[in-house]
Amino acid sequence: MATRKGRSYDRAFQGSNKLKVIPLGGLHEIGKNITVFEYGDEIIVLDCGVAFPQEDMPGIDLVIPDFTYLIQNKNKVKGIVITHGHEDHIGSLPYLLRDLKVPVYGTKLTIGLIETKLKEHNLLDSVERHNVNAGETIKLGKNFKVEFIRSNHSIADSVAMAIFTPVGTVVHSGDFKIDYTPIQGDVIDLQRFAELGKEGVLLFMCESTNVERPGFTMSERSVGKIFEMIFNDAKGQRIMIATFSSNIDRIQQIINSSVANKRKVCVMGRSMTNVVTTAKELGYLEIPANTLIDVNDIKNYTDEQLTLVMTGSQGETMSALSRIASGDHRSIELKPSDKVVISASPIPGNEKSVYKVINDLMKKGAEVIYEGLMDVHVSGHARQEEIKLMHTLVKPKFFVPVHGEYKMLKFHKNLAVELGMNKNDVFVMDNGDCLELGKNMAYLTSSAVQSGQVFVDGLGVGDVGNIVLRDRRHLSQDGLMIVVVAINKYTGEILSGPDIVSRGFVYVREAEDLVNEAKSVVNEALSSCERNFMNEWSYIKTLIKDTLKNFLWQKTKRSPMILPIVIDIE
Amino acid sequence: MATRKGRSYDRAFQGSNKLKVIPLGGLHEIGKNITVFEYGDEIIVLDCGVAFPQEDMPGIDLVIPDFTYLIQNKNKVKGIVITHGHEDHIGSLPYLLRDLKVPVYGTKLTIGLIETKLKEHNLLDSVERHNVNAGETIKLGKNFKVEFIRSNHSIADSVAMAIFTPVGTVVHSGDFKIDYTPIQGDVIDLQRFAELGKEGVLLFMCESTNVERPGFTMSERSVGKIFEMIFNDAKGQRIMIATFSSNIDRIQQIINSSVANKRKVCVMGRSMTNVVTTAKELGYLEIPANTLIDVNDIKNYTDEQLTLVMTGSQGETMSALSRIASGDHRSIELKPSDKVVISASPIPGNEKSVYKVINDLMKKGAEVIYEGLMDVHVSGHARQEEIKLMHTLVKPKFFVPVHGEYKMLKFHKNLAVELGMNKNDVFVMDNGDCLELGKNMAYLTSSAVQSGQVFVDGLGVGDVGNIVLRDRRHLSQDGLMIVVVAINKYTGEILSGPDIVSRGFVYVREAEDLVNEAKSVVNEALSSCERNFMNEWSYIKTLIKDTLKNFLWQKTKRSPMILPIVIDIE
Repeated sequence: MATRKGRSYDRAFQGSNKLKVIPLGGLHEIGKNITVFEYGDEIIVLDCGVAFPQEDMPGIDLVIPDFTYLIQNKNKVKGIVITHGHEDHIGSLPYLLRDLKVPVYGTKLTIGLIETKLKEHNLLDSVERHNVNAGETIKLGKNFKVEFIRSNHSIADSVAMAIFTPVGTVVHSGDFKIDYTPIQGDVIDLQRFAELGKEGVLLFMCESTNVERPGFTMSERSVGKIFEMIFNDAKGQRIMIATFSSNIDRIQQIINSSVANKRKVCVMGRSMTNVVTTAKELGYLEIPANTLIDVNDIKNYTDEQLTLVMTGSQGETMSALSRIASGDHRSIELKPSDKVVISASPIPGNEKSVYKVINDLMKKGAEVIYEGLMDVHVSGHARQEEIKLMHTLVKPKFFVPVHGEYKMLKFHKNLAVELGMNKNDVFVMDNGDCLELGKNMAYLTSSAVQSGQVFVDGLGVGDVGNIVLRDRRHLSQDGLMIVVVAINKYTGEILSGPDIVSRGFVYVREAEDLVNEAKSVVNEALSSCERNFMNEWSYIKTLIKDTLKNFLWQKTKRSPMILPIVIDIE
Repeated sequence: MATRKGRSYDRAFQGSNKLKVIPLGGLHEIGKNITVFEYGDEIIVLDCGVAFPQEDMPGIDLVIPDFTYLIQNKNKVKGIVITHGHEDHIGSLPYLLRDLKVPVYGTKLTIGLIETKLKEHNLLDSVERHNVNAGETIKLGKNFKVEFIRSNHSIADSVAMAIFTPVGTVVHSGDFKIDYTPIQGDVIDLQRFAELGKEGVLLFMCESTNVERPGFTMSERSVGKIFEMIFNDAKGQRIMIATFSSNIDRIQQIINSSVANKRKVCVMGRSMTNVVTTAKELGYLEIPANTLIDVNDIKNYTDEQLTLVMTGSQGETMSALSRIASGDHRSIELKPSDKVVISASPIPGNEKSVYKVINDLMKKGAEVIYEGLMDVHVSGHARQEEIKLMHTLVKPKFFVPVHGEYKMLKFHKNLAVELGMNKNDVFVMDNGDCLELGKNMAYLTSSAVQSGQVFVDGLGVGDVGNIVLRDRRHLSQDGLMIVVVAINKYTGEILSGPDIVSRGFVYVREAEDLVNEAKSVVNEALSSCERNFMNEWSYIKTLIKDTLKNFLWQKTKRSPMILPIVIDIE
């Protein structure tokens, strides 16, 4: 658990009537979005997401926020409001809700996706959920009212939030873009943002994902036009499309093009199937009868009658598309006549895996269409011009850029200043920082609450920390060498060994000489111990370690982890 | 050593007078460029580069080609010709030259950079080097003449090659772009390519790095204009610029802007210093007297009088820029008034490291200018329109796209076909494949020579193979658990243990219960052995392994490497 230690609050502000805004995640990082709003003895939480592990976190499955502050203030928490159903906004709910039983509020699709998640964690019966429509306002505790504002994003039913507090209104953008021609629902409620701005907004919190990019993000509908071209141009071909499972509008467009071209649609991959099932039940996908088919029925149709929609647009090893590309899929074998569309951008860090899948598909002869060749993807995040529009409508007193690495937050600050804000009214915060707000004032307190990242590995939450990760990284670099010696407890006489076992260091059959030499180096060191009657474990262990370390570095310029194991026998 | 086994050649073509073209690296991958040309009993080699390790090769320092085929045909090799001095074209020369003493030919700067490399490997005295000017032709053996053709790239003194053989002319593009206004030297010799095309080119081999990108790569000079703006706008600021150490033209432009603004230049980082020294000595950098200063003299100048040029544009952990960003640099401390320019694009896979450096620099208050904000970098590789021009000038009978992943080679093939080539005259080859050419014919033989990748780790070349890497990856995922038991050799009685040591699995203090439980699970299994008089090592080891594996998976859903060590005592 990498954590940022909390310091005690400034005494001066304790108990005074201020709104505290404390992001516990999502700043200086991508993902794991969660913000705490606190007034008096009441807290509400906005979003509760996961981050995906970085390269330097081998073996880690998920990264969740450090919930210590919320657990310590359990009784204050009145509820959790969720802007939309993406993993980086809902993914760590189960880990918080198992310790904190408070109601969760979201739009219908968002709650539907959360319920799938709660079911997997056996929490469905113990957690209260509430559907809220965009446009509605809920009351949380005595001090908070939260209005859900219709928005656009790469998942349906996304909202921004207006949080009404005794000191003023906070507007949080959630993840958003401005789509004048959305597939599902209506364009983001720009009028409402304008109205709030007119009435006066104390604090604006706005996402920063695409803030470095100039211009305007294209409408989701533009992808549909490209799909039409691709489908028209696919005579005799089976079409496979990989995209984000949560992008229901994208899936709707694939279904539309398929129906128009008399193709059946087969949905593949666990998360894709989950989302489509939920979205269909809740009315977020319009699928004509007899359109969806089971994977086992594929054989009953010609290639030209088939569209397969699947996971794997990020090159994930276990996904449907990767398995098809590597020839490992249970039921689908790739044909040279197949047309594969990767309808997504590689998320930074995934480029190589995505390219590998493309190369593998092409080597098997398939036609592959990916971003760069055709515009088969648009982002769900606002670019500069959209962000400027939002600032101009909301016109807040104070501004906090959220969701992004430091460089993006900084860029967003500069953009707000260019738009006319005083730079002292813009706060680039870090996770755990506390912004206190009065009716006409805002300042960062000198205190920070405990925040940080907690690693989930298998069933373990928080039991893998920095020491364990450091060991994993060390092991991955040069492997390890184990030296085992059995020693007579009383005389110090060597009863067995030294034996050497190595893994991940060098292929032993080719390095027998090296291992033998290593043994005799250890032997020599040990016999000096015997001569000097040194039979203290820790001394012997350190001696073996140092001797071997020097020897191996000299011989190979490598530093495997060295584990001396000394057993004494009575 | 991951290798592709050679098969025996088709009998029909043995001994006939054909030119064989065998790429040993650089296809279906980035880097490690090397091509073998063979006619009768003579071989010449073009380029000899390294690749940098991928994510799934933990601990590996470099990847070099498998040289088996060349070593087996030692006596045939007449020489090695090198197109330019980048690592992916010269980096594995020392590993080949220590076993194969043949002359190396290159332009002056290229040979200069190779000599630095040979010196480090103690090979300078034993290897023959020859400077060749662009425009000159050398004779190698009885059958080969090689003409060096002036080119443009992100390193000075780059050439393409025309290889004249008894069956016809091969043109190899090397790495190139078309720069009508280069910093150093002249524009690529388009007239010569046209002339060769007119005379008739049998085979064209052309690089594919940027073939997926439409348009034309900008001139290096365009970066200089941006530098002028940046320098003009840096009143009172110290300027730091990170770029590729080999990009001498970029460094020249930094020096020009510095001199124009009365700044001294300090060159930092080992590889940067090496290249600047070599380039200066050989006349490839024009540096007015009293411009370069030593890092120790920085204190004698104001910020406004200083430009620091350094390595680290790819976020490399040990580089000058990374150390400055993290506050670990020996002599430079970052100031909030510093202006840092990252004059490079992140190579795919390096994005996160580069962003980390940018974030760290910004957190310390420095101004950071990177690609995306301003055009502080241009590529050294031709885009589609430049590649089309080359095809049109060279107009070959046959074409082999080189340097690139499969998807790029495939794309390049399609582009050649669009330009009018017959698709049967274009060969998308793999490393080790053999293209045989006669005067009017070309075909891929059914045989392939041994090729592949050899890993360099510390001093070891080829002693880390797939098994070792698999172990490293396994260790990095869930760590390891070692179980040690000492047993009476004759009675099977347990004399000591089972003891459990784990690393990289879970933080043991927080998981004492788990380790204790694991011990008793092993104990139980062992006592069943005792009861059944089973004291065979291998049986006991397998039993411990399986028992513990199941137990840990059930308890934690993790699979650490389990190493049972059974010692028997007489």
